[in-house]
Amino acid sequence: MTYELFYWPGIQGRGEFIRLAFEDAGVPYEDVGRRPGGVAEIQRLRAASGPGLAPLAPPFLRHGRVVVAQTALVLAYVAPRIGVVPGDEASRRRAHQIQLTIADLVAEVHDTHHPVAASLYYEDQKPEAARRAAGFTAERIPMYLVWLDRALDSNPRGRGRSLVGARCSYADLSLFQVVAGLRYAFPNAMARHERKLPRLAAVHDAVAARPRIAAYLASARRIPFNEDGIFRRYPELDVAPGKRR
Amino acid sequence: MTYELFYWPGIQGRGEFIRLAFEDAGVPYEDVGRRPGGVAEIQRLRAASGPGLAPLAPPFLRHGRVVVAQTALVLAYVAPRIGVVPGDEASRRRAHQIQLTIADLVAEVHDTHHPVAASLYYEDQKPEAARRAAGFTAERIPMYLVWLDRALDSNPRGRGRSLVGARCSYADLSLFQVVAGLRYAFPNAMARHERKLPRLAAVHDAVAARPRIAAYLASARRIPFNEDGIFRRYPELDVAPGKRR
Repeated sequence: MTYELFYWPGIQGRGEFIRLAFEDAGVPYEDVGRRPGGVAEIQRLRAASGPGLAPLAPPFLRHGRVVVAQTALVLAYVAPRIGVVPGDEASRRRAHQIQLTIADLVAEVHDTHHPVAASLYYEDQKPEAARRAAGFTAERIPMYLVWLDRALDSNPRGRGRSLVGARCSYADLSLFQVVAGLRYAFPNAMARHERKLPRLAAVHDAVAARPRIAAYLASARRIPFNEDGIFRRYPELDVAPGKRR
Repeated sequence: MTYELFYWPGIQGRGEFIRLAFEDAGVPYEDVGRRPGGVAEIQRLRAASGPGLAPLAPPFLRHGRVVVAQTALVLAYVAPRIGVVPGDEASRRRAHQIQLTIADLVAEVHDTHHPVAASLYYEDQKPEAARRAAGFTAERIPMYLVWLDRALDSNPRGRGRSLVGARCSYADLSLFQVVAGLRYAFPNAMARHERKLPRLAAVHDAVAARPRIAAYLASARRIPFNEDGIFRRYPELDVAPGKRR
Protein backbone atom coordinates (compact mmCIF):
# COMPACT_ATOMS: atom_id res chain seq x y z
CA MET A 1 0.00 0.00 0.00
CA THR A 2 1.51 3.32 -1.09
CA TYR A 3 2.25 6.10 1.35
CA GLU A 4 1.12 9.41 -0.13
CA LEU A 5 2.36 12.59 1.53
CA PHE A 6 0.26 15.69 0.86
CA TYR A 7 2.27 18.85 1.35
CA TRP A 8 2.95 22.12 -0.42
CA PRO A 9 5.67 21.95 -3.06
CA GLY A 10 8.57 24.38 -2.89
CA ILE A 11 9.15 24.39 0.85
CA GLN A 12 10.46 22.02 3.50
CA GLY A 13 7.93 23.23 6.05
CA ARG A 14 6.25 20.81 8.41
CA GLY A 15 6.23 18.16 5.69
CA GLU A 16 10.00 17.80 5.98
CA PHE A 17 9.75 15.95 9.29
CA ILE A 18 7.71 13.28 7.51
CA ARG A 19 9.96 13.21 4.44
CA LEU A 20 12.99 12.61 6.66
CA ALA A 21 11.29 9.61 8.30
CA PHE A 22 10.55 7.95 4.95
CA GLU A 23 13.98 8.79 3.58
CA ASP A 24 15.80 7.34 6.59
CA ALA A 25 13.64 4.22 6.51
CA GLY A 26 14.29 3.76 2.81
CA VAL A 27 10.56 3.37 2.31
CA PRO A 28 9.14 4.80 -0.94
CA TYR A 29 6.51 7.54 -0.66
CA GLU A 30 4.67 9.72 -3.13
CA ASP A 31 5.24 13.43 -2.57
CA VAL A 32 1.84 14.29 -4.04
CA GLY A 33 2.17 18.08 -3.91
CA ARG A 34 5.24 17.96 -6.15
CA ARG A 35 3.70 16.06 -9.03
CA PRO A 36 1.61 17.74 -11.77
CA GLY A 37 -1.82 18.63 -10.42
CA GLY A 38 -0.62 17.88 -6.91
CA VAL A 39 -1.71 21.11 -5.28
CA ALA A 40 -5.22 20.69 -6.68
CA GLU A 41 -5.28 17.20 -5.17
CA ILE A 42 -4.31 18.61 -1.77
CA GLN A 43 -7.13 21.14 -1.96
CA ARG A 44 -9.61 18.49 -3.08
CA LEU A 45 -8.92 16.34 -0.02
CA ARG A 46 -9.13 19.30 2.35
CA ALA A 47 -12.53 20.16 0.93
CA ALA A 48 -13.80 16.59 0.84
CA SER A 49 -17.13 15.97 2.49
CA GLY A 50 -18.68 12.69 3.47
CA PRO A 51 -17.43 10.17 6.00
CA GLY A 52 -13.90 10.61 7.27
CA LEU A 53 -12.16 13.58 8.81
CA ALA A 54 -10.94 16.06 6.18
CA PRO A 55 -7.60 17.58 7.23
CA LEU A 56 -7.62 21.26 8.13
CA ALA A 57 -4.20 21.78 6.59
CA PRO A 58 -1.21 19.92 5.13
CA PRO A 59 0.84 17.96 5.84
CA PHE A 60 -1.31 14.88 5.81
CA LEU A 61 -0.79 11.30 4.76
CA ARG A 62 -2.97 8.87 2.85
CA HIS A 63 -2.28 5.20 3.36
CA GLY A 64 -4.91 3.01 1.78
CA ARG A 65 -8.19 4.17 3.29
CA VAL A 66 -6.51 5.99 6.18
CA VAL A 67 -6.07 9.76 5.93
CA VAL A 68 -4.21 11.25 8.89
CA ALA A 69 -3.20 14.86 9.52
CA GLN A 70 -1.11 16.80 12.03
CA THR A 71 2.65 16.29 11.60
CA ALA A 72 3.25 14.64 14.97
CA LEU A 73 0.28 12.30 14.55
CA VAL A 74 1.34 11.36 11.01
CA LEU A 75 4.72 10.40 12.44
CA ALA A 76 3.15 8.50 15.34
CA TYR A 77 1.08 6.58 12.78
CA VAL A 78 3.78 5.85 10.26
CA ALA A 79 6.94 5.47 12.35
CA PRO A 80 6.21 2.02 13.84
CA ARG A 81 5.12 0.80 10.40
CA ILE A 82 8.36 1.83 8.69
CA GLY A 83 10.65 1.08 11.63
CA VAL A 84 11.87 4.52 12.69
CA VAL A 85 10.78 4.21 16.33
CA PRO A 86 11.06 1.34 18.83
CA GLY A 87 7.87 -0.70 19.00
CA ASP A 88 7.11 -0.54 22.73
CA GLU A 89 4.41 1.85 23.95
CA ALA A 90 6.67 3.84 26.30
CA SER A 91 9.17 4.60 23.52
CA ARG A 92 6.43 5.55 21.09
CA ARG A 93 4.89 7.88 23.67
CA ARG A 94 8.30 9.41 24.42
CA ALA A 95 8.96 10.06 20.72
CA HIS A 96 5.48 11.54 20.29
CA GLN A 97 5.93 13.90 23.26
CA ILE A 98 9.27 15.09 21.87
CA GLN A 99 7.75 15.61 18.42
CA LEU A 100 4.84 17.60 19.88
CA THR A 101 7.28 19.81 21.76
CA ILE A 102 9.22 20.31 18.52
CA ALA A 103 5.91 21.20 16.86
CA ASP A 104 5.45 23.95 19.45
CA LEU A 105 8.92 25.23 18.63
CA VAL A 106 8.20 25.15 14.90
CA ALA A 107 4.98 27.14 15.40
CA GLU A 108 6.98 29.75 17.30
CA VAL A 109 9.57 29.90 14.52
CA HIS A 110 6.75 30.53 12.03
CA ASP A 111 5.40 33.32 14.18
CA THR A 112 8.74 35.14 14.32
CA HIS A 113 8.05 36.24 10.73
CA HIS A 114 4.24 36.10 10.99
CA PRO A 115 3.36 37.41 14.46
CA VAL A 116 0.21 39.23 13.29
CA ALA A 117 -1.39 36.94 10.72
CA ALA A 118 -0.42 34.07 8.44
CA SER A 119 -2.57 35.70 5.76
CA LEU A 120 -0.41 38.86 5.61
CA TYR A 121 3.00 39.20 4.01
CA TYR A 122 6.07 39.46 6.21
CA GLU A 123 6.54 42.96 4.81
CA ASP A 124 3.24 43.95 6.40
CA GLN A 125 4.28 42.88 9.91
CA LYS A 126 7.96 43.70 10.16
CA PRO A 127 7.95 45.81 13.35
CA GLU A 128 5.95 43.15 15.18
CA ALA A 129 8.23 40.45 13.79
CA ALA A 130 11.32 42.25 15.08
CA ARG A 131 9.89 42.37 18.60
CA ARG A 132 8.76 38.75 18.53
CA ALA A 133 12.06 37.50 17.12
CA ALA A 134 14.00 39.35 19.82
CA GLY A 135 12.20 37.42 22.53
CA PHE A 136 12.35 34.20 20.56
CA THR A 137 16.10 34.30 19.99
CA ALA A 138 16.88 35.45 23.54
CA GLU A 139 14.51 33.25 25.54
CA ARG A 140 12.73 30.59 23.55
CA ILE A 141 15.56 29.08 21.48
CA PRO A 142 17.63 28.35 24.61
CA MET A 143 14.58 27.05 26.46
CA TYR A 144 13.82 24.50 23.75
CA LEU A 145 17.46 23.58 23.11
CA VAL A 146 18.17 23.01 26.79
CA TRP A 147 15.08 20.85 27.01
CA LEU A 148 16.15 18.79 24.00
CA ASP A 149 19.64 18.40 25.45
CA ARG A 150 18.17 17.19 28.73
CA ALA A 151 15.91 14.83 26.79
CA LEU A 152 19.04 13.31 25.23
CA ASP A 153 20.56 13.00 28.68
CA SER A 154 17.45 11.39 30.14
CA ASN A 155 17.37 8.50 27.68
CA PRO A 156 18.92 5.59 29.58
CA ARG A 157 19.44 3.56 26.39
CA GLY A 158 20.78 6.41 24.29
CA ARG A 159 23.87 7.55 26.24
CA GLY A 160 23.29 11.13 25.19
CA ARG A 161 23.41 10.13 21.54
CA SER A 162 19.76 9.41 20.75
CA LEU A 163 16.45 10.70 22.08
CA VAL A 164 14.47 7.46 22.14
CA GLY A 165 15.85 3.95 22.52
CA ALA A 166 19.36 2.83 21.64
CA ARG A 167 19.31 3.80 17.96
CA CYS A 168 18.31 6.69 15.74
CA SER A 169 14.53 7.31 15.71
CA TYR A 170 12.36 9.87 14.01
CA ALA A 171 12.81 12.09 17.07
CA ASP A 172 16.51 12.37 16.22
CA LEU A 173 15.69 13.11 12.58
CA SER A 174 13.42 15.91 13.80
CA LEU A 175 16.14 17.21 16.11
CA PHE A 176 18.47 17.32 13.09
CA GLN A 177 15.87 19.31 11.15
CA VAL A 178 15.33 21.78 13.96
CA VAL A 179 19.05 22.40 14.45
CA ALA A 180 19.57 22.79 10.69
CA GLY A 181 16.58 25.12 10.41
CA LEU A 182 17.51 27.29 13.36
CA ARG A 183 21.08 27.57 12.06
CA TYR A 184 19.72 28.71 8.71
CA ALA A 185 17.24 31.23 10.11
CA PHE A 186 19.10 32.51 13.16
CA PRO A 187 22.83 31.86 12.64
CA ASN A 188 23.91 34.45 15.22
CA ALA A 189 21.54 33.31 17.93
CA MET A 190 22.31 29.66 17.27
CA ALA A 191 26.06 30.19 17.42
CA ARG A 192 25.59 31.74 20.86
CA HIS A 193 23.25 29.10 22.25
CA GLU A 194 24.66 25.97 20.65
CA ARG A 195 28.12 26.48 22.10
CA LYS A 196 26.98 25.24 25.50
CA LEU A 197 25.10 22.22 24.11
CA PRO A 198 27.55 20.18 22.01
CA ARG A 199 25.43 17.03 22.14
CA LEU A 200 22.80 18.62 19.89
CA ALA A 201 25.36 19.33 17.17
CA ALA A 202 26.68 15.77 17.55
CA VAL A 203 23.21 14.31 16.93
CA HIS A 204 22.74 16.71 14.00
CA ASP A 205 26.02 15.52 12.46
CA ALA A 206 25.33 11.85 13.14
CA VAL A 207 21.93 12.10 11.41
CA ALA A 208 23.38 13.99 8.44
CA ALA A 209 25.99 11.23 8.04
CA ARG A 210 23.48 8.38 7.91
CA PRO A 211 23.83 6.97 4.38
CA ARG A 212 20.20 7.39 3.29
CA ILE A 213 19.92 10.85 4.85
CA ALA A 214 23.22 11.95 3.30
CA ALA A 215 21.97 10.73 -0.09
CA TYR A 216 18.67 12.52 0.43
CA LEU A 217 20.31 15.80 1.45
CA ALA A 218 22.48 15.67 -1.68
CA SER A 219 19.48 14.95 -3.93
CA ALA A 220 16.98 17.24 -5.65
CA ARG A 221 14.31 15.79 -3.35
CA ARG A 222 15.69 17.95 -0.51
CA ILE A 223 14.23 21.39 -1.15
CA PRO A 224 16.69 24.07 0.02
CA PHE A 225 15.71 26.30 2.92
CA ASN A 226 14.11 29.44 1.51
CA GLU A 227 12.08 32.49 2.49
CA ASP A 228 8.72 30.87 1.72
CA GLY A 229 9.18 28.17 4.35
CA ILE A 230 9.05 28.15 8.12
CA PHE A 231 12.75 28.69 8.75
CA ARG A 232 13.53 31.97 6.96
CA ARG A 233 16.74 33.95 6.97
CA TYR A 234 15.84 37.56 7.61
CA PRO A 235 18.99 39.12 9.08
CA GLU A 236 16.94 41.81 10.81
CA LEU A 237 15.33 39.07 12.94
CA ASP A 238 18.68 37.67 14.10
CA VAL A 239 20.30 40.68 15.75
CA ALA A 240 22.58 40.14 18.74
CA PRO A 241 20.99 41.47 21.98
CA GLY A 242 23.54 44.28 22.51
CA LYS A 243 23.01 45.56 18.98
CA ARG A 244 19.27 46.13 19.25
CA ARG A 245 18.01 49.65 19.16
CA MET B 1 -3.20 3.83 40.71
CA THR B 2 -3.90 7.54 41.20
CA TYR B 3 -4.05 9.97 38.30
CA GLU B 4 -2.17 13.13 39.24
CA LEU B 5 -2.69 16.19 37.04
CA PHE B 6 0.06 18.81 37.23
CA TYR B 7 -1.19 22.21 36.17
CA TRP B 8 -1.11 25.80 37.36
CA PRO B 9 -3.75 26.69 39.94
CA GLY B 10 -6.03 29.63 39.32
CA ILE B 11 -6.66 29.14 35.62
CA GLN B 12 -8.51 26.71 33.39
CA GLY B 13 -5.84 26.90 30.70
CA ARG B 14 -4.79 23.80 28.82
CA GLY B 15 -5.30 21.71 31.95
CA GLU B 16 -9.06 22.16 31.64
CA PHE B 17 -9.29 19.77 28.68
CA ILE B 18 -7.86 17.05 30.93
CA ARG B 19 -10.02 17.99 33.93
CA LEU B 20 -13.15 17.71 31.78
CA ALA B 21 -12.21 14.19 30.69
CA PHE B 22 -11.79 12.99 34.27
CA GLU B 23 -14.92 14.79 35.42
CA ASP B 24 -17.06 13.31 32.67
CA ALA B 25 -15.67 9.84 33.30
CA GLY B 26 -16.34 10.15 37.02
CA VAL B 27 -12.77 9.04 37.65
CA PRO B 28 -11.00 10.64 40.64
CA TYR B 29 -7.84 12.63 39.97
CA GLU B 30 -5.52 14.73 42.07
CA ASP B 31 -5.24 18.33 40.89
CA VAL B 32 -1.70 18.64 42.25
CA GLY B 33 -1.19 22.33 41.50
CA ARG B 34 -4.15 23.29 43.66
CA ARG B 35 -3.03 21.59 46.87
CA PRO B 36 -0.57 23.21 49.32
CA GLY B 37 2.95 23.07 47.91
CA GLY B 38 1.54 22.00 44.55
CA VAL B 39 3.30 24.60 42.43
CA ALA B 40 6.65 23.64 43.96
CA GLU B 41 5.89 20.03 43.05
CA ILE B 42 5.21 21.03 39.43
CA GLN B 43 8.54 22.85 39.27
CA ARG B 44 10.37 19.94 40.87
CA LEU B 45 9.16 17.52 38.18
CA ARG B 46 9.99 19.92 35.37
CA ALA B 47 13.54 20.24 36.68
CA ALA B 48 13.97 16.52 37.40
CA SER B 49 17.05 14.91 35.93
CA GLY B 50 17.79 11.24 35.50
CA PRO B 51 15.94 8.69 33.40
CA GLY B 52 12.58 9.71 32.03
CA LEU B 53 11.55 12.68 29.98
CA ALA B 54 10.95 15.77 32.14
CA PRO B 55 8.02 17.82 30.79
CA LEU B 56 8.84 21.18 29.27
CA ALA B 57 5.65 22.71 30.66
CA PRO B 58 2.35 21.86 32.35
CA PRO B 59 -0.09 20.30 31.95
CA PHE B 60 1.32 16.85 32.52
CA LEU B 61 0.02 13.72 34.14
CA ARG B 62 1.64 11.22 36.48
CA HIS B 63 0.13 7.77 36.57
CA GLY B 64 2.25 5.34 38.57
CA ARG B 65 5.67 5.45 36.93
CA VAL B 66 4.39 7.09 33.74
CA VAL B 67 4.80 10.85 33.35
CA VAL B 68 3.27 12.21 30.14
CA ALA B 69 3.08 15.80 28.89
CA GLN B 70 1.42 17.70 26.04
CA THR B 71 -2.33 18.12 26.49
CA ALA B 72 -3.36 16.09 23.44
CA LEU B 73 -0.98 13.26 24.31
CA VAL B 74 -2.16 13.20 27.92
CA LEU B 75 -5.70 12.79 26.61
CA ALA B 76 -4.65 10.13 24.10
CA TYR B 77 -3.01 8.25 26.99
CA VAL B 78 -5.76 8.58 29.53
CA ALA B 79 -8.97 8.57 27.47
CA PRO B 80 -9.06 4.84 26.60
CA ARG B 81 -8.19 4.00 30.21
CA ILE B 82 -11.10 6.00 31.66
CA GLY B 83 -13.56 5.29 28.85
CA VAL B 84 -13.99 8.70 27.20
CA VAL B 85 -13.07 7.56 23.68
CA PRO B 86 -14.03 4.45 21.68
CA GLY B 87 -11.39 1.73 21.93
CA ASP B 88 -10.66 1.12 18.24
CA GLU B 89 -7.53 2.59 16.70
CA ALA B 90 -9.32 4.62 14.01
CA SER B 91 -11.53 6.37 16.57
CA ARG B 92 -8.61 7.08 18.86
CA ARG B 93 -6.64 8.55 15.96
CA ARG B 94 -9.61 10.65 14.90
CA ALA B 95 -10.05 12.04 18.40
CA HIS B 96 -6.33 12.74 18.65
CA GLN B 97 -6.28 14.61 15.33
CA ILE B 98 -9.24 16.74 16.44
CA GLN B 99 -7.59 17.48 19.79
CA LEU B 100 -4.33 18.48 18.07
CA THR B 101 -6.25 20.85 15.80
CA ILE B 102 -7.97 22.30 18.87
CA ALA B 103 -4.50 22.69 20.43
CA ASP B 104 -3.49 24.80 17.43
CA LEU B 105 -6.57 26.94 17.95
CA VAL B 106 -5.82 27.31 21.66
CA ALA B 107 -2.25 28.42 20.89
CA GLU B 108 -3.65 31.07 18.55
CA VAL B 109 -6.08 32.25 21.21
CA HIS B 110 -3.16 32.64 23.61
CA ASP B 111 -1.24 34.66 21.07
CA THR B 112 -4.10 37.13 20.55
CA HIS B 113 -3.11 38.63 23.91
CA HIS B 114 0.56 37.61 23.77
CA PRO B 115 1.66 38.09 20.15
CA VAL B 116 5.14 39.32 21.05
CA ALA B 117 6.25 37.22 24.01
CA ALA B 118 4.69 35.05 26.71
CA SER B 119 7.20 36.58 29.12
CA LEU B 120 5.81 40.12 28.70
CA TYR B 121 2.58 41.48 30.15
CA TYR B 122 -0.38 42.03 27.86
CA GLU B 123 -0.04 45.72 28.66
CA ASP B 124 3.37 45.69 26.99
CA GLN B 125 2.06 44.30 23.69
CA LYS B 126 -1.36 45.87 23.25
CA PRO B 127 -0.94 47.37 19.74
CA GLU B 128 0.39 44.06 18.42
CA ALA B 129 -2.42 42.20 20.19
CA ALA B 130 -5.05 44.41 18.56
CA ARG B 131 -3.69 43.62 15.09
CA ARG B 132 -3.39 39.91 15.78
CA ALA B 133 -6.86 39.68 17.33
CA ALA B 134 -8.40 41.45 14.32
CA GLY B 135 -7.12 38.72 12.01
CA PHE B 136 -7.95 35.99 14.48
CA THR B 137 -11.57 37.04 14.95
CA ALA B 138 -12.15 37.72 11.26
CA GLU B 139 -10.38 34.74 9.69
CA ARG B 140 -9.19 32.12 12.13
CA ILE B 141 -12.25 31.65 14.36
CA PRO B 142 -14.50 30.89 11.36
CA MET B 143 -11.83 28.64 9.81
CA TYR B 144 -11.63 26.49 12.93
CA LEU B 145 -15.37 26.52 13.64
CA VAL B 146 -16.26 25.53 10.09
CA TRP B 147 -13.72 22.70 10.29
CA LEU B 148 -15.18 21.47 13.60
CA ASP B 149 -18.70 21.65 12.15
CA ARG B 150 -17.59 19.61 9.15
CA ALA B 151 -15.88 17.16 11.50
CA LEU B 152 -19.24 16.65 13.23
CA ASP B 153 -20.86 16.12 9.84
CA SER B 154 -18.22 13.63 8.74
CA ASN B 155 -18.75 11.24 11.66
CA PRO B 156 -20.96 8.50 10.25
CA ARG B 157 -21.85 7.19 13.71
CA GLY B 158 -22.48 10.57 15.30
CA ARG B 159 -25.26 12.03 13.11
CA GLY B 160 -23.88 15.54 13.56
CA ARG B 161 -24.14 15.21 17.33
CA SER B 162 -20.73 13.82 18.28
CA LEU B 163 -17.24 14.09 16.82
CA VAL B 164 -16.05 10.52 17.36
CA GLY B 165 -18.19 7.40 17.55
CA ALA B 166 -21.84 7.28 18.52
CA ARG B 167 -21.52 8.80 21.99
CA CYS B 168 -19.84 11.74 23.71
CA SER B 169 -16.02 11.47 23.71
CA TYR B 170 -13.28 13.72 25.01
CA ALA B 171 -13.29 15.45 21.60
CA ASP B 172 -16.81 16.69 22.33
CA LEU B 173 -15.78 17.82 25.81
CA SER B 174 -12.96 19.79 24.19
CA LEU B 175 -15.36 21.27 21.63
CA PHE B 176 -17.55 22.39 24.54
CA GLN B 177 -14.54 24.04 26.19
CA VAL B 178 -13.51 25.84 23.00
CA VAL B 179 -17.01 27.18 22.35
CA ALA B 180 -17.35 28.30 25.98
CA GLY B 181 -13.92 29.92 25.94
CA LEU B 182 -14.40 31.72 22.64
CA ARG B 183 -17.79 33.01 23.81
CA TYR B 184 -16.14 34.35 26.94
CA ALA B 185 -13.19 35.98 25.18
CA PHE B 186 -14.77 37.14 21.92
CA PRO B 187 -18.54 37.43 22.48
CA ASN B 188 -19.07 39.71 19.49
CA ALA B 189 -17.07 37.64 17.05
CA MET B 190 -18.62 34.41 18.29
CA ALA B 191 -22.16 35.76 18.00
CA ARG B 192 -21.43 36.55 14.34
CA HIS B 193 -19.75 33.27 13.47
CA GLU B 194 -21.80 30.84 15.54
CA ARG B 195 -25.08 31.85 13.97
CA LYS B 196 -24.32 29.83 10.84
CA LEU B 197 -23.12 26.77 12.74
CA PRO B 198 -25.92 25.71 15.11
CA ARG B 199 -24.57 22.18 15.55
CA LEU B 200 -21.61 23.50 17.53
CA ALA B 201 -23.90 25.20 20.05
CA ALA B 202 -25.99 22.03 20.25
CA VAL B 203 -22.93 19.94 21.17
CA HIS B 204 -21.87 22.61 23.67
CA ASP B 205 -25.29 22.46 25.33
CA ALA B 206 -25.47 18.67 25.28
CA VAL B 207 -22.07 18.43 27.00
CA ALA B 208 -23.00 21.07 29.58
CA ALA B 209 -26.15 19.08 30.39
CA ARG B 210 -24.34 15.81 31.04
CA PRO B 211 -24.93 15.11 34.76
CA ARG B 212 -21.28 14.88 35.82
CA ILE B 213 -20.25 17.89 33.71
CA ALA B 214 -23.20 19.93 35.01
CA ALA B 215 -22.19 19.05 38.57
CA TYR B 216 -18.58 19.96 37.82
CA LEU B 217 -19.47 23.29 36.24
CA ALA B 218 -21.56 24.17 39.30
CA SER B 219 -18.76 23.19 41.70
CA ALA B 220 -15.78 25.11 43.07
CA ARG B 221 -13.53 22.74 41.08
CA ARG B 222 -14.44 24.65 37.91
CA ILE B 223 -12.24 27.73 37.99
CA PRO B 224 -14.06 30.66 36.36
CA PHE B 225 -12.66 32.11 33.14
CA ASN B 226 -10.37 34.99 34.04
CA GLU B 227 -7.72 37.30 32.59
CA ASP B 228 -4.81 35.12 33.70
CA GLY B 229 -5.91 32.20 31.55
CA ILE B 230 -5.85 31.52 27.83
CA PHE B 231 -9.35 32.76 27.05
CA ARG B 232 -9.34 36.40 28.25
CA ARG B 233 -12.03 38.99 27.84
CA TYR B 234 -10.35 42.16 26.63
CA PRO B 235 -13.11 44.12 24.85
CA GLU B 236 -10.53 45.98 22.74
CA LEU B 237 -9.62 42.62 21.13
CA ASP B 238 -13.22 41.84 20.16
CA VAL B 239 -14.16 44.81 18.01
CA ALA B 240 -16.58 44.30 15.12
CA PRO B 241 -14.82 44.71 11.72
CA GLY B 242 -16.75 47.86 10.74
CA LYS B 243 -15.86 49.57 14.00
CA ARG B 244 -12.12 49.24 13.69
CA ARG B 245 -10.11 52.39 13.24
